[in-house]
Amino acid sequence: MTESNKPSLEVCLSPALLHLFDVKNSIVVIIDVLRATSTICTALYNGASRVIPVATVEECVNIGRAIDGITAGERDGRVAEGLVHGNSPFEYPREFIENKTLVLTTTNGTKLLHMAKDAIQIVTGSFPNITAVCNYLVEQKQNVILGCAAWKDRVNMEDTLFAGAVVNRIKQHFDVNCDSAIAAETLYTAARPDIHTFMKQASHYQRLAKYGLEKDIQYCLTPDGANILPLFRDGELIGI
Amino acid sequence: MTESNKPSLEVCLSPALLHLFDVKNSIVVIIDVLRATSTICTALYNGASRVIPVATVEECVNIGRAIDGITAGERDGRVAEGLVHGNSPFEYPREFIENKTLVLTTTNGTKLLHMAKDAIQIVTGSFPNITAVCNYLVEQKQNVILGCAAWKDRVNMEDTLFAGAVVNRIKQHFDVNCDSAIAAETLYTAARPDIHTFMKQASHYQRLAKYGLEKDIQYCLTPDGANILPLFRDGELIGI
Repeated sequence: MTESNKPSLEVCLSPALLHLFDVKNSIVVIIDVLRATSTICTALYNGASRVIPVATVEECVNIGRAIDGITAGERDGRVAEGLVHGNSPFEYPREFIENKTLVLTTTNGTKLLHMAKDAIQIVTGSFPNITAVCNYLVEQKQNVILGCAAWKDRVNMEDTLFAGAVVNRIKQHFDVNCDSAIAAETLYTAARPDIHTFMKQASHYQRLAKYGLEKDIQYCLTPDGANILPLFRDGELIGI
Repeated sequence: MTESNKPSLEVCLSPALLHLFDVKNSIVVIIDVLRATSTICTALYNGASRVIPVATVEECVNIGRAIDGITAGERDGRVAEGLVHGNSPFEYPREFIENKTLVLTTTNGTKLLHMAKDAIQIVTGSFPNITAVCNYLVEQKQNVILGCAAWKDRVNMEDTLFAGAVVNRIKQHFDVNCDSAIAAETLYTAARPDIHTFMKQASHYQRLAKYGLEKDIQYCLTPDGANILPLFRDGELIGI
């Protein structure tokens, strides 16, 4: 807690900066908008019993086999060899994913999640579950770190925008003494009138658009399409 | 060079991210707006023969003694013990600094400068010399990394704003495929109508304002008060 008696709200723009934050005394929100954390909340919202995030394709295959889970993950824009599904939220409608376990390998998001393992609590956030995330954070009355998964440790636009959107919504409940948080909020406010057009400048947009994924991007940037809170516990994410 | 045949322009928001950039094939601009790089260009503009940036107070004392230089540096807002001058640009008018050597110890800026030692060229930038920096970068036709000194590795507002201002001025001459650069420029554009008021939200503003340094801040955020280019060579910065 800070002098104002409000908990602190900070933004960590890259996993390579996480060591600068007091993870142990904070709730950490893992943000990987394109597309891991958008897909995670979508699968849970559509009834998946849990999502197990893993770092490598090999782990994904092994765990998927052991528990009869749906294995998913991409490398360079294609379903990775040995896995069955990709990273698109549209691959996980209720009729497919309900009551199943999704074993998902992502590089950036999973790495950050494991780095934050000592946090009070870990949840995941993206635009499709922004209201669930914001409501949860306000209720908990704990310090919060909005952790951007970034792209191979490089600061990225979409995760920064989401962090800024959260700051914009809940800042009155927190002490925001963090330049990254103020910068992210300012960025979000500038982008908000047309966030899709704004995102066209971003490096990852261009990467995904090459693969024909504009529909995914549109969904991942739209609030509240899958309003559930993925909570990390004992190696898996469950929806609450 | 990138596909567009223009050199690249990137922004590195913290020294802790510098390893992600191709320093060896770039010009690096060291940015420490409050106040190291503002004071450096001011001293050189006012006729200092050179500025020797050093990491510790001890080095500063020893080198100052050896070469009969002006020793300067602060710790926690006061002139450090053993040194004679502080970090304020107003301490270095022409009648005092002309033809002298300034030995300056700063933590954030000096650290980044030494990290960037393999760069094609290192220069320093801040608002008081923004036009000199921009003209130089456009003329060189080399890849550029705008390196923010930040605050103990944490991303800060003032250095990000300056990086954004440079991107805004020179982007048409470069290939800007860097989300940090686009974000910094957007931030700068949002702040530009009243950059001083905008900066009042920043953590370092509050730190310095406590010490009564609003006048310093005002100067450090104002373009072209000391339009000279500090170039790093053989351990010292000279004005060109």
